[in-house]
Amino acid sequence: MSELKGACIIGQSGGPTSAINASALGAIEAALDNPSITAVYGAANGIRGVLDDKLYDLDKEDRAELSHLKYTPSSALGSCRYKLKDPDVDDADYRRILEIFQKYDVRYFFYNGGNDSMDTCNKISKFMLKNGYECRVMGIPKTIDNDLAGTDHCPGYGSAAKYVATSCMEIYQDARVYDIGMITIVEIMGRHAGWLTAAAALAGPYAPDLIYLPEVPFDMDTFLKDTQVVYEKNGKAIVAVSEGIHDKDGKFIAEYGVSGEQTKDSFGHTQLGGLAATLAAIVKEKTGAKVRGIEFSLLQRCASHVASQTDLDESYAAGKAAVDHATAGTTDKMVGFKCTRDCGYLCELALLPLDIVANTEKKVPREWINPAGNGLLQGYIDYGLPLIQGETKQEKENGLPRFARLKKILVQG
Amino acid sequence: MSELKGACIIGQSGGPTSAINASALGAIEAALDNPSITAVYGAANGIRGVLDDKLYDLDKEDRAELSHLKYTPSSALGSCRYKLKDPDVDDADYRRILEIFQKYDVRYFFYNGGNDSMDTCNKISKFMLKNGYECRVMGIPKTIDNDLAGTDHCPGYGSAAKYVATSCMEIYQDARVYDIGMITIVEIMGRHAGWLTAAAALAGPYAPDLIYLPEVPFDMDTFLKDTQVVYEKNGKAIVAVSEGIHDKDGKFIAEYGVSGEQTKDSFGHTQLGGLAATLAAIVKEKTGAKVRGIEFSLLQRCASHVASQTDLDESYAAGKAAVDHATAGTTDKMVGFKCTRDCGYLCELALLPLDIVANTEKKVPREWINPAGNGLLQGYIDYGLPLIQGETKQEKENGLPRFARLKKILVQG
Repeated sequence: MSELKGACIIGQSGGPTSAINASALGAIEAALDNPSITAVYGAANGIRGVLDDKLYDLDKEDRAELSHLKYTPSSALGSCRYKLKDPDVDDADYRRILEIFQKYDVRYFFYNGGNDSMDTCNKISKFMLKNGYECRVMGIPKTIDNDLAGTDHCPGYGSAAKYVATSCMEIYQDARVYDIGMITIVEIMGRHAGWLTAAAALAGPYAPDLIYLPEVPFDMDTFLKDTQVVYEKNGKAIVAVSEGIHDKDGKFIAEYGVSGEQTKDSFGHTQLGGLAATLAAIVKEKTGAKVRGIEFSLLQRCASHVASQTDLDESYAAGKAAVDHATAGTTDKMVGFKCTRDCGYLCELALLPLDIVANTEKKVPREWINPAGNGLLQGYIDYGLPLIQGETKQEKENGLPRFARLKKILVQG
Repeated sequence: MSELKGACIIGQSGGPTSAINASALGAIEAALDNPSITAVYGAANGIRGVLDDKLYDLDKEDRAELSHLKYTPSSALGSCRYKLKDPDVDDADYRRILEIFQKYDVRYFFYNGGNDSMDTCNKISKFMLKNGYECRVMGIPKTIDNDLAGTDHCPGYGSAAKYVATSCMEIYQDARVYDIGMITIVEIMGRHAGWLTAAAALAGPYAPDLIYLPEVPFDMDTFLKDTQVVYEKNGKAIVAVSEGIHDKDGKFIAEYGVSGEQTKDSFGHTQLGGLAATLAAIVKEKTGAKVRGIEFSLLQRCASHVASQTDLDESYAAGKAAVDHATAGTTDKMVGFKCTRDCGYLCELALLPLDIVANTEKKVPREWINPAGNGLLQGYIDYGLPLIQGETKQEKENGLPRFARLKKILVQG
């Protein structure tokens, strides 16, 4: 394929992670060094920055300062949860994006995010193709949910999983320290897929006694019985639950006992939260035990101080590969990982069609969950353990993380 | 003073921390190496282990395995919150303790804990003195609350403070990432003293916009106005609150809007929690903004993976000093720290009378809090920053912390 010269836009979208900036750095550094790319722009708050003509001039950033991005959590360029309409219904946003691409001669678009972001990426790619505007569009995956199809795992997952496993180990030590009974319920992110909650099992002998994923319908009576059995045997019980656990009718357990009010985000997803507190109240009422609910909240996705160096290195490589492949002629693909674990862990980059990835959710295989649906089997451990290896090389300043301090100078359009 | 030969008991009490086992290790290693000490026992679950004649034989532990205690969170010997009665009212517990001490020829008693534990320690010391039983009793401080009188700071505080400052930095990155308004309320432990909440200020440019400590009466209207001002200016606001904030009448804010039920622990303290959720609901109602409440919960006291090495080293030294001083003749004292910060940070060990330390709470000085009562001044930063220096040397195994695995063999009495 012939060389395509032009500017590039890099955008970040969806919930931030500890590793999304590592991918951004991989893409930014590769773009800055690539002669086909004439200018490197960062979209302020993802696709919203394109629509609003708010682009950062990344050529103006200091290279040494940029390099700290690898160890800076959250999305340095800002994120959004804006959902593009179906172009067959309303193509106004797409025409605006095309206008901006033409204005800045953008020939490369790199979008870094989860399912919804790959959907955005896919729609833009198809629109540009249909309208004959030559622009190479590449998706760079990112999600602590680890639910993107086609890839062995997703950038961001390993770091979040390391946080979850580490914190579960620490909670195990703490929650069992008194000579009185105690049930601890830990709520972990994951709306439809239980990958992150499964990571609690990586804590091995310090793992929660019971782990519930949304892959298996949650039955309150069975859960209460399971918990009671462990509690009566040990005087303690630690239970990990995915925020998205739901009963056989699909009703979220987080909504049990909550009277009325439900909120939905702009993608139409029900906003979850408060599950640990809800379950704690139910367990307390049924067992009479002392119960504590713990929600990892934002920390599970932004605790960069305990990021997996494997995850950061792979995330960086994914960002770099997106640029390298695009400038070499590839378009309409997402960078993914193809891994083998038979003779040690080996991870290779792969290119996946965007339309297959977009909006397909990959679940934890049922055969990795025990028959009772309250624990993980060795299959998952073998899968997950390599992803959390390596301590972050994050630089410290005054005993605290040193984050990238970018200038973020807006392009005067 | 003449040499006193006999066994020693080491006990841990109160809420666990990331550093209490470092102090235990300092005491255990010094005791194992000291010729005056004939046997080294660990009390199972603090003073309860003495009362119940449940002692671990620490001479039977592997020394290399023991050394991992320095990096193992929570209380390895188990903890309790048992409160001894006033010996003038009911001395049954004290007579039982004396009986056990006589049974095992215990001549050294080291008790590792916070205010209530120093009170226990003090009462035992005075009872033994009064009853003419020669036993040297030493307190080893520990509390993430940092509220023990007489000492510059307390073992455990630096590590918890490092967790709080680090997590606040990460939350700052995450909570500001979207292009929509958001108010984040972070709840940090601290019943009567705001030391740990103050540590949020160590995050510097990434610190919460507003920080409220229990040292200043909390006024809901002023708080709502403060928050609104920040939110209207920045579109975001991050607020840190101490769990113990209360209004001018002494009513805990956590109890606002909570109908009825209040629980108290065995020391008569009101059990707090749910403050972040309570405040989030109030702020949401008043401002209409999207509000998120985050509770650090147990993690702030057990997150050993982000412990301060300074704290661990000092905690170890405090445990060792207790044994060294006791065998040299000292009794009825707590080991404390005397520090200077004028020409760099310098920390020396000091011996403090137990009865002064017991049950006196040290608060954050008013002059370190800004006049508005919603932020910290440089005086606190200069105080706190040296305490969070140094990354933990915790060993990792398979990408996760390597905790001590003790045999904990019970002494056959």
